[in-house]
Amino acid sequence: MTVDVSNETVLLERERHVAWVTLNRPERLNAMNDAMLDELEAVLADLAASDNRVVVIRGAGRAFSAGYDVAADSAEVGYAAERTPVEDRDRLVSNIERFTQVWRHPQPVIAAVHGYCVAGATQLASLADITIVSDDATIMASPALPLGGGYLSPLWVHLVGPKRAKLMSFDAGRKISGKQAAEWGWAAESVPPELFDEHVARTAHSIARTPAPLLRLKKEAINRAAELQGLLTYARMGAETDALLHLTPEVQAYQESIKTYGLKGAIARFNAEDAP
Amino acid sequence: MTVDVSNETVLLERERHVAWVTLNRPERLNAMNDAMLDELEAVLADLAASDNRVVVIRGAGRAFSAGYDVAADSAEVGYAAERTPVEDRDRLVSNIERFTQVWRHPQPVIAAVHGYCVAGATQLASLADITIVSDDATIMASPALPLGGGYLSPLWVHLVGPKRAKLMSFDAGRKISGKQAAEWGWAAESVPPELFDEHVARTAHSIARTPAPLLRLKKEAINRAAELQGLLTYARMGAETDALLHLTPEVQAYQESIKTYGLKGAIARFNAEDAP
Amino acid sequence: MTVDVSNETVLLERERHVAWVTLNRPERLNAMNDAMLDELEAVLADLAASDNRVVVIRGAGRAFSAGYDVAADSAEVGYAAERTPVEDRDRLVSNIERFTQVWRHPQPVIAAVHGYCVAGATQLASLADITIVSDDATIMASPALPLGGGYLSPLWVHLVGPKRAKLMSFDAGRKISGKQAAEWGWAAESVPPELFDEHVARTAHSIARTPAPLLRLKKEAINRAAELQGLLTYARMGAETDALLHLTPEVQAYQESIKTYGLKGAIARFNAEDAP
Amino acid sequence: MTVDVSNETVLLERERHVAWVTLNRPERLNAMNDAMLDELEAVLADLAASDNRVVVIRGAGRAFSAGYDVAADSAEVGYAAERTPVEDRDRLVSNIERFTQVWRHPQPVIAAVHGYCVAGATQLASLADITIVSDDATIMASPALPLGGGYLSPLWVHLVGPKRAKLMSFDAGRKISGKQAAEWGWAAESVPPELFDEHVARTAHSIARTPAPLLRLKKEAINRAAELQGLLTYARMGAETDALLHLTPEVQAYQESIKTYGLKGAIARFNAEDAP
Amino acid sequence: MTVDVSNETVLLERERHVAWVTLNRPERLNAMNDAMLDELEAVLADLAASDNRVVVIRGAGRAFSAGYDVAADSAEVGYAAERTPVEDRDRLVSNIERFTQVWRHPQPVIAAVHGYCVAGATQLASLADITIVSDDATIMASPALPLGGGYLSPLWVHLVGPKRAKLMSFDAGRKISGKQAAEWGWAAESVPPELFDEHVARTAHSIARTPAPLLRLKKEAINRAAELQGLLTYARMGAETDALLHLTPEVQAYQESIKTYGLKGAIARFNAEDAP
Amino acid sequence: MTVDVSNETVLLERERHVAWVTLNRPERLNAMNDAMLDELEAVLADLAASDNRVVVIRGAGRAFSAGYDVAADSAEVGYAAERTPVEDRDRLVSNIERFTQVWRHPQPVIAAVHGYCVAGATQLASLADITIVSDDATIMASPALPLGGGYLSPLWVHLVGPKRAKLMSFDAGRKISGKQAAEWGWAAESVPPELFDEHVARTAHSIARTPAPLLRLKKEAINRAAELQGLLTYARMGAETDALLHLTPEVQAYQESIKTYGLKGAIARFNAEDAP
Repeated sequence: MTVDVSNETVLLERERHVAWVTLNRPERLNAMNDAMLDELEAVLADLAASDNRVVVIRGAGRAFSAGYDVAADSAEVGYAAERTPVEDRDRLVSNIERFTQVWRHPQPVIAAVHGYCVAGATQLASLADITIVSDDATIMASPALPLGGGYLSPLWVHLVGPKRAKLMSFDAGRKISGKQAAEWGWAAESVPPELFDEHVARTAHSIARTPAPLLRLKKEAINRAAELQGLLTYARMGAETDALLHLTPEVQAYQESIKTYGLKGAIARFNAEDAP
Repeated sequence: MTVDVSNETVLLERERHVAWVTLNRPERLNAMNDAMLDELEAVLADLAASDNRVVVIRGAGRAFSAGYDVAADSAEVGYAAERTPVEDRDRLVSNIERFTQVWRHPQPVIAAVHGYCVAGATQLASLADITIVSDDATIMASPALPLGGGYLSPLWVHLVGPKRAKLMSFDAGRKISGKQAAEWGWAAESVPPELFDEHVARTAHSIARTPAPLLRLKKEAINRAAELQGLLTYARMGAETDALLHLTPEVQAYQESIKTYGLKGAIARFNAEDAP
Repeated sequence: MTVDVSNETVLLERERHVAWVTLNRPERLNAMNDAMLDELEAVLADLAASDNRVVVIRGAGRAFSAGYDVAADSAEVGYAAERTPVEDRDRLVSNIERFTQVWRHPQPVIAAVHGYCVAGATQLASLADITIVSDDATIMASPALPLGGGYLSPLWVHLVGPKRAKLMSFDAGRKISGKQAAEWGWAAESVPPELFDEHVARTAHSIARTPAPLLRLKKEAINRAAELQGLLTYARMGAETDALLHLTPEVQAYQESIKTYGLKGAIARFNAEDAP
Repeated sequence: MTVDVSNETVLLERERHVAWVTLNRPERLNAMNDAMLDELEAVLADLAASDNRVVVIRGAGRAFSAGYDVAADSAEVGYAAERTPVEDRDRLVSNIERFTQVWRHPQPVIAAVHGYCVAGATQLASLADITIVSDDATIMASPALPLGGGYLSPLWVHLVGPKRAKLMSFDAGRKISGKQAAEWGWAAESVPPELFDEHVARTAHSIARTPAPLLRLKKEAINRAAELQGLLTYARMGAETDALLHLTPEVQAYQESIKTYGLKGAIARFNAEDAP
Repeated sequence: MTVDVSNETVLLERERHVAWVTLNRPERLNAMNDAMLDELEAVLADLAASDNRVVVIRGAGRAFSAGYDVAADSAEVGYAAERTPVEDRDRLVSNIERFTQVWRHPQPVIAAVHGYCVAGATQLASLADITIVSDDATIMASPALPLGGGYLSPLWVHLVGPKRAKLMSFDAGRKISGKQAAEWGWAAESVPPELFDEHVARTAHSIARTPAPLLRLKKEAINRAAELQGLLTYARMGAETDALLHLTPEVQAYQESIKTYGLKGAIARFNAEDAP
Repeated sequence: MTVDVSNETVLLERERHVAWVTLNRPERLNAMNDAMLDELEAVLADLAASDNRVVVIRGAGRAFSAGYDVAADSAEVGYAAERTPVEDRDRLVSNIERFTQVWRHPQPVIAAVHGYCVAGATQLASLADITIVSDDATIMASPALPLGGGYLSPLWVHLVGPKRAKLMSFDAGRKISGKQAAEWGWAAESVPPELFDEHVARTAHSIARTPAPLLRLKKEAINRAAELQGLLTYARMGAETDALLHLTPEVQAYQESIKTYGLKGAIARFNAEDAP
């Protein structure tokens, strides 16, 4: 295996016909900031133009990804006061468009999910072709403190149906294990953590036996069936819902709470809601 | 917990941000008659206008609900001679519209299903947002004697797919356990009976941490994705199919059979069909 | 049970209201050639006009069916040089139309799957109403050597979702057991092999208690819901994708490889692709 | 031009690559009875297997077709007492399936409409590929006396939108001219009556310049787009609505009225409804 | 004709089987305020429960309706500061739900449009079954000053297609005549102003010849076809888009401009935008 | 007006908030070659990032555009022998993706069509937001000689319905005037040629009064409604159909014919087909 490219936040290694794309901000559980999303986009575009056959996206360190970087000190906070409502919506749509690049990529893209996969990271996984998950991964559709809504969980519907999408969306911070995610159909399959890396590699190389033009049209044919249910359209709509919710007094109060008490403190106060 | 309202057939209790709505004809396994459907509609409308956040619908006694009340001595029998074909269809559509009120309710609605959940009761559960089921519940899409068709099981398709919807529809009286219902995705999750009440309460109050406006738009965003597959449209269509089948000689013969032999006798005679 | 009709490749037995249709080329694992598809079409048309209530399709010998007959010495090879591109597409569409006859058949059709069910045979099973599978069956969406694409696996999407359809499509020759197929929702249920025959018979006769007109409209009502997701439309589309791929240098090279090395040899050479 | 086949009710003439199919019961304004529908089906199947390129369907005498033959003395009356409700529905669906044969025919099918085109005849025209209409034709979606409903006019929706479909459906016996039908988009174009025959012939032969395989896939590609709006699915649904309405007291009273007063007398009595 | 009910803002007259519902704030061009919308809802609900067959909605005085009442001195201004973002969205959705009551009404509803029909009033007309328009009416999809967006014009798409919906939406204050609206298919038909009243009455009574149950199912069958294109779903979505735009600096500046310069002055300043 | 950018084949001028993008190969009737498509893509991307509000695309000289450049001596010939089948399909899809950039562009895009607008140029116009056409323009969905199929005319379906899309697709070289294109709804409006330029400019600047964020979301809301009918999905599918037809003996014979007789000669020979 040779390391081809090393960006700051996304690593690329190529091994025969398989490309390993690693989200690489392990100290932040690979939380996605704009730099990472830009680099991911660039890496995928380069691979699309190459003779590569299969892409695997994975996370460095303890997580696949903790989602968008919304920590109090981050520049990427979604509801930043300096954005207009439509600028906020545009930013949210642009994330969907980046992940649609994964869906439209000419090569099969495997999301190899271990550790945490939270909120925005589940959008990326949802629009990857195949998700393989470690049995002990922790998957959350909504973050522990609801700072918006309607943006993340619609992308669960075509995989787990509306009932489970609602359970994961309404109950902030609800977790399922990788094993359960596969039982629900969110992931294509789950494997024990000790076999995870080898299983992903074996699957990727097994797919890579098939020539690129065949893989390209096989992917297109299945995408077609999924798109006919409105997938790409409703994926975009959530940006407007979320931008609207960013402007509610409730979300702005959580935002203030984060500033005052820190993220953990704000979550603790939220968790005390509706307690007896 | 304070009891707010006590109708004859539907009870309402409110506990902080959670409303408990109890179907309350335990001596009839909470079979739904017009009085119960009217009271359910009124209670849900009142809650929609209140500051409540989460609704739980459950059944008193041994069952969630045995479905529409079609016992031989009941006034609610679907194919009653005194209705015209279109009046019969209108009555069937009006049930769907009542349950669509659940789907459109501004608050998350949990169907907490224990004991029997049969036929028409699965329509109600299907259009609730989240179904939590006891492992030992008994779920039936079609009653033990087929007195119509095409009305109940289409509402299973978006949850369990067409193959299982057909199995449950074609094989009259076929039962699955709550555990299996969750494995199939008909319910969001199942829990052992001894943990059922506490688990439902904990889930409801956990959801109730999130402010109402956020829950409202989160629900809308997921509903959207499900509706784009035609859900509400095909839910209505079944009323015409069912009304037509009510007029067939076969269903009218079963109707006569119930009058002559009682419901149990009629089922026994039906079960002897196609026996060697 | 009386044997009604005995074609060369499809057997028909009728037992009260249940018809048993057996794919009968056991020495070729019931690989479907044109003769078999013609006879299956004729048998189903005859049953549609009869007083039969339930149809079961099963395979003789060790398999349900190994799919289309594409062995090197067969006349049915898909990419035969003597066909024009549109003739090839027409042939592929005509298979879908035959299986659509199953979907539109006025009686419930059960696919009783044991042993191998591979590639084209999964199209037949997909468009049957109910699939019952033996726990130890072996299900493959794509053959061990990819001789086309986009034709078979779209018909998995409405049953197992896009992620698993892609896994089974991209990874040539990937197998799942009957048990797993039922966990994924591809089959309505799986049963241990020693109970398989009895369980299928009992289910078929249990369904056959219900009169034909009720079964007919129950089926139509559920079909409707599934068709609204584009099922029959995208089922046809794959014929063009597949016919196009038949003309690629890569598939033609595999074709040559089969001629030179035999099917097993060609598969072995394919499997060595992307090896370290 | 050579006359190829002469059935009793459908004539076939072939002229180079164009086939002229003539509905031929001019004394009944080509009202469609079962014999005509059977012969049309057979003729189209023969053409599909031939080297023909373009099919034109037209009417002999003063009309394209007056629709299904429902005169009081006809054996084809839709709501005949001797049919069960589901047999009635089956008959209605089978008409749709015959016209779907037109939609799926491998060759472009032109409906050349002059004179009357009423009720069921508009279903045939709707599912033809191209409708060319004489300026002075008379088009009616619903017959002068409503003997059912929900069966004919849904097939107008994809051509003229819901508002005009409703106007033509609700207002029994409402007529539009061929010229207006083209302005609304129900027909592809209208031409003055004196140019009608020549224009149809010239269009047919102009299309026939293009080889059959190209025409076949061009048709499929456009069908696809139309089917994705649910066309073939909702075309079938109307059969249940119509069969249900056949059983209402209102339609049965019209039926009695026809027997007592003749068709014209019954229409006159209907027209006096809601008069001041 | 007898006047049945006289509310303050909506009049009801019944004439045999036809009900005339008149929007009655002629001094405000029948601009819709909450009182009018409430009374319209009540009147329609009463009619639904009556033996009425056909409903006509029309406007008193010089207009059908000028849309929602957004004049500077009105309490109904959409972006009023005292509403939260989600309350604003809820109000917008509730309008759609009121107009969906028209779409779901058991009787055909004719919108008889003369004079002005602007913005929100086109939502009402869009969801009526049949629109009859006076040749000299003035139809505008968007008001002269854009105070939001994405809410009104999507309801034009199923009638005039996306290109014309965009033209009418993007070009604020763009007008078409009634005659053109019918040519585009927005209305079912247009008639010269001097014939308007009589033509509407004649059409309504002609439809009223047909018994209510037939009209009810005919309407349902066509609604079905239109709903399968997502109509009711995307009708709701616009509420979120519009509520988001209400919070943009641009719309808030127009709001200030109205307060400062009056509605006419604000429009004049808007019109000077992008001038050379 | 200041000329901003001058590429070889695409000119850009900006005038206040309106950008004029001119296809500029007048000596070839602005036939689109790869250079032009690349420059168009670049220009649109630059505008998307600017403060521009409205884009107008028009053609220099006597035509909007004659479509893809397929003259015998051009390097862009679609069925060039040196491409594999999937490379050919990829090229065709990439055109659709370029035009989808127009559909997704954050600003309204007007196609101002005068003179010839043929084949591939109608794809561009179809995915523009608003088409304004000169009364005397000449619009053709398919070229005079059919060199493929299923690629161009599906993009007419959402504008003119399936019947007219089929007429224009099946009858090679069929022309309609701009006036008729507007009557059919293919264009939003047509204007006399002497008023064309001024009308387009006035419309563009009138739209440009509205701020960019409002225009962006208004466009998104209408796109949504159109996409729910499968527009973007079936737009892509045609690439496979077309690539398959490129490989048929019939199209390859036309290709040879062009080489031997020149384009005009080949068309003449095609036109003699099916002549008496």
